Amino acid sequence: MSTNVVGVDMGGTKILSAVIDAEGNILGTAKVSTKADEQTSAVIDRIAESIEKAINKSNVDNASIQAIGIGAPGPLDPETGVVIFAPNLGWRDVPLKAELEARTGFPTFVDNDVNVGTLGEHAFGAAQGVQNVVGIFVGTGIGGGIILKGELFHGASKTAGEVGHIIVKADGPRCGCGTRGCLEAIASRTAMAKQFRKAIKKKGKKSVLTKLTDGDLKIIRSGVLVKAIQANDKLTLKVFKKATKYLGIGIGSIVNFLNPEMIVLGGGVVEALDDTFIDNIRTYAEKYALPDTLNGVQIVRAKLGDNSGILGAAALARQRFEGT
Amino acid sequence: MSTNVVGVDMGGTKILSAVIDAEGNILGTAKVSTKADEQTSAVIDRIAESIEKAINKSNVDNASIQAIGIGAPGPLDPETGVVIFAPNLGWRDVPLKAELEARTGFPTFVDNDVNVGTLGEHAFGAAQGVQNVVGIFVGTGIGGGIILKGELFHGASKTAGEVGHIIVKADGPRCGCGTRGCLEAIASRTAMAKQFRKAIKKKGKKSVLTKLTDGDLKIIRSGVLVKAIQANDKLTLKVFKKATKYLGIGIGSIVNFLNPEMIVLGGGVVEALDDTFIDNIRTYAEKYALPDTLNGVQIVRAKLGDNSGILGAAALARQRFEGT
Repeated sequence: MSTNVVGVDMGGTKILSAVIDAEGNILGTAKVSTKADEQTSAVIDRIAESIEKAINKSNVDNASIQAIGIGAPGPLDPETGVVIFAPNLGWRDVPLKAELEARTGFPTFVDNDVNVGTLGEHAFGAAQGVQNVVGIFVGTGIGGGIILKGELFHGASKTAGEVGHIIVKADGPRCGCGTRGCLEAIASRTAMAKQFRKAIKKKGKKSVLTKLTDGDLKIIRSGVLVKAIQANDKLTLKVFKKATKYLGIGIGSIVNFLNPEMIVLGGGVVEALDDTFIDNIRTYAEKYALPDTLNGVQIVRAKLGDNSGILGAAALARQRFEGT
Repeated sequence: MSTNVVGVDMGGTKILSAVIDAEGNILGTAKVSTKADEQTSAVIDRIAESIEKAINKSNVDNASIQAIGIGAPGPLDPETGVVIFAPNLGWRDVPLKAELEARTGFPTFVDNDVNVGTLGEHAFGAAQGVQNVVGIFVGTGIGGGIILKGELFHGASKTAGEVGHIIVKADGPRCGCGTRGCLEAIASRTAMAKQFRKAIKKKGKKSVLTKLTDGDLKIIRSGVLVKAIQANDKLTLKVFKKATKYLGIGIGSIVNFLNPEMIVLGGGVVEALDDTFIDNIRTYAEKYALPDTLNGVQIVRAKLGDNSGILGAAALARQRFEGT
């Protein structure tokens, strides 16, 4: 009987595939390099290869595999399974679903990586059994996903869940999207790195970050942030307070507008930090949400960590396959 | 056969009831004064009286009435039909549904007035047949409602749709809700009146508003705004540009986050103004929404005007009765 699925987490540098059973147990995994600079067909060959390897390593029959789910970057059409645009991969209009189905023979379902991450938390993580959930993932950027009545909500242009582009401070800092004052432009790791550079290089502020990064403040990894916070670095704490304030304001807007039962916070920055970070965000969300609107709303940490991609893709495969 | 419903629009000064058939035709209406300063039971008696009058005036049998729908102010529980708090009426924890059912004998369904207005546009107005809709009503305050998959969405604390309290400018103008920078604090009629007063009284700016209001700038009615705009009043146009900019930013956030098929704009301010107002809002929404996210999203004017309350309440009665 077909009871297993394969979940694929496709990133710009690596592709992780896993065979997962109905209870969310990971039976076997395989990792390959993306090598995004190679031809699209070669990259898709490697995805198929990682799927085959994961099945072999898990010691299950091909016949036990119901479907494949894959979380991929960039705007994509979850119905046709076409990746519209993925700058990390250099992809435009790639029919990922069709190509993988041709190679593997399994029904394949594709969705956006942050949508898949949110779905993973809903199926196997912090949001199990919760009907209406907003996932917020803070890393290089800020992405998100929306689950309504237990299902991913995609919206009119299939772009729902762009939490990072809620405008929290009109005419505020410039955002990569071309406008100003988006949440991502203040509270993402990229935005924080920019604030550190400005303070240290332009304003001459002292910070342990200079030593921790050997003076290279272009990209600040989450581990470096953790060390700077542990060292009670004044500048880091200030930038952090600002980021949590604005994350709280963004969540306040979401709670006032959509009033979901749960907000799940995940991503590299959230994973690296202790609960003070979440507590700060909650304090600001309480300040900005209308009285009583936060009553039924839980703000929690994501639980799946690095496995959210493969587990979410497994949930996607199962949910979409059963819906067909 | 029961094919008609009664829709009731309950405001702080008047109660309007109407018998409405399955096609949305208004068969008969009755209006009574709310007299909110009287006892709660007397006010509810008058609602029941207006319902009876509307049925009599429409020349239909009581037996033809399927259910009653009523849109009421303030936070309320749409399931129990209890109005939790309505400052305009001086009500706290009033079991409106139960009281009206006891008086009329008809199954009665209650929801928030702006939710009902949005539902009206969905059933009989601008958003017919659209699955996912956000209604935004700009008047003294800014309220809204969310329709997802064809049904009102209430959220975890039954407060979903508080569009006026999306935070668009952190640390911006003070809002009546106790925080700062909410959309309502910049773009509602109350917020605009405040800006006019500040400019005229404190900064000595010239404006036709001084003459149009006989110097009483406490409340600026929509009609006065229209005249000032027609007169090309510099101050009015400036305040208006700001309001439409921030409405556009709020819509930009909504489009990025929820990506609904349609945004319906209604309420006193929107009704009073010509299409330049809507066009301005759309221009700013396009500027603040992510590229491509506005593709499938229509931004339109509400169609039902003063009838949105009774028609929405009729739709509520029908939808909820059929769901029981």
